[in-house]
Amino acid sequence: MVDPTAAIPPASREAVLETFGLLGYGQLLAFSRLAEDAPHAPALADRLVLSRMAAGELAQLEDLQQYVNYRGGDLAAAMGHFHGVLGDLDARTAPQDWPERLMRMYIGYGIVADFQREVSAGLDERSRTVAQGALATNGFDDYVVSVLRPMIDADSRHAARLALWGRRVVGEALSLAQHALVHHRLLADLLHAARPGEDTAALLARLERGHSLRMERLGLAA
Amino acid sequence: MVDPTAAIPPASREAVLETFGLLGYGQLLAFSRLAEDAPHAPALADRLVLSRMAAGELAQLEDLQQYVNYRGGDLAAAMGHFHGVLGDLDARTAPQDWPERLMRMYIGYGIVADFQREVSAGLDERSRTVAQGALATNGFDDYVVSVLRPMIDADSRHAARLALWGRRVVGEALSLAQHALVHHRLLADLLHAARPGEDTAALLARLERGHSLRMERLGLAA
Repeated sequence: MVDPTAAIPPASREAVLETFGLLGYGQLLAFSRLAEDAPHAPALADRLVLSRMAAGELAQLEDLQQYVNYRGGDLAAAMGHFHGVLGDLDARTAPQDWPERLMRMYIGYGIVADFQREVSAGLDERSRTVAQGALATNGFDDYVVSVLRPMIDADSRHAARLALWGRRVVGEALSLAQHALVHHRLLADLLHAARPGEDTAALLARLERGHSLRMERLGLAA
Repeated sequence: MVDPTAAIPPASREAVLETFGLLGYGQLLAFSRLAEDAPHAPALADRLVLSRMAAGELAQLEDLQQYVNYRGGDLAAAMGHFHGVLGDLDARTAPQDWPERLMRMYIGYGIVADFQREVSAGLDERSRTVAQGALATNGFDDYVVSVLRPMIDADSRHAARLALWGRRVVGEALSLAQHALVHHRLLADLLHAARPGEDTAALLARLERGHSLRMERLGLAA
């Protein structure tokens, strides 16, 4: 019998599991976030859109599960390492209304997804392909832009308030990313493997550039 | 071109749409309920179980959607007729802890599902088959019994408290079923078609018998 894990060194296998734990926990949180946001939608049609996106996040979690099973790992156990880390984002950013709720997900989970992409870049090719599949867009960003952009363009008070809110959310998300790196040495090692010689400040700068692009799509300054 | 709706009279088609609206809204609420309950689970494994069941509810909604599209109807519009009716169940039954949360879903949505089955029995055969597919068990009942039964058997205080809670939840659920019948004449007509000569009291008695069986599985008197 061929051991699928034999070809890569044990340390790398641990890093794969840790990364998939991060990805899996992120998918589960995105599922819960979208599913809980959905009933707050102003119309049933929007509630359906978000509920379906939520279910899509969970479908991506199953893909991760399948791969980790194949590698002989335990995804739930790996996900458990991140319990309480990423979950804080929601607790620290309680939205006041529907636009703030949409932006929390768009901005906050946008940073989380970019961070997950950065870490995944350090994986072996096969694992990276699976990871990228799970991180593929679910259409949420386009949906948020289609809802919020006209609102922002039409009323400068919305623009001012949501720009402020975006800065608040991104601050929390970036501090979570830093926290995750401090507490998960294997992730920091993967980032280093993907971009040797780069420090955390350079990573954060790149995450902020991604954020600026998302804000620009809304017509807001980061 | 063949019109798939041509073979049945318009009144019946309206009743099908109304029933599928009820079923679809029920699936959407069950999705939201399970998805929102999941993060309250005491362990990540349970959170995953409930999240997956939630996604399953939404998958069943897609089956309903597909059939209604085929019949030339608009499922979202039909679902909209039930907005605020079924949703009240959650608002009226705020659980204090995890066992009460599980029981709310088990007891409350148990009644909702039985009610949906009763109404669906009056549909034409093809519609009924699709409806029954969407109402197929998702394993939630077995899960709840496996979690709560040992707890109840081990501690009579749990038993007393949860028996009381079950009566509270079923009372709300039965009053919602009555409310739905009063406000949705087409559903009452279907019930009448399925069991001519039966009045609402007989229906409620049957729903209560189903409830008693669920309570029995937990080792509780209804």
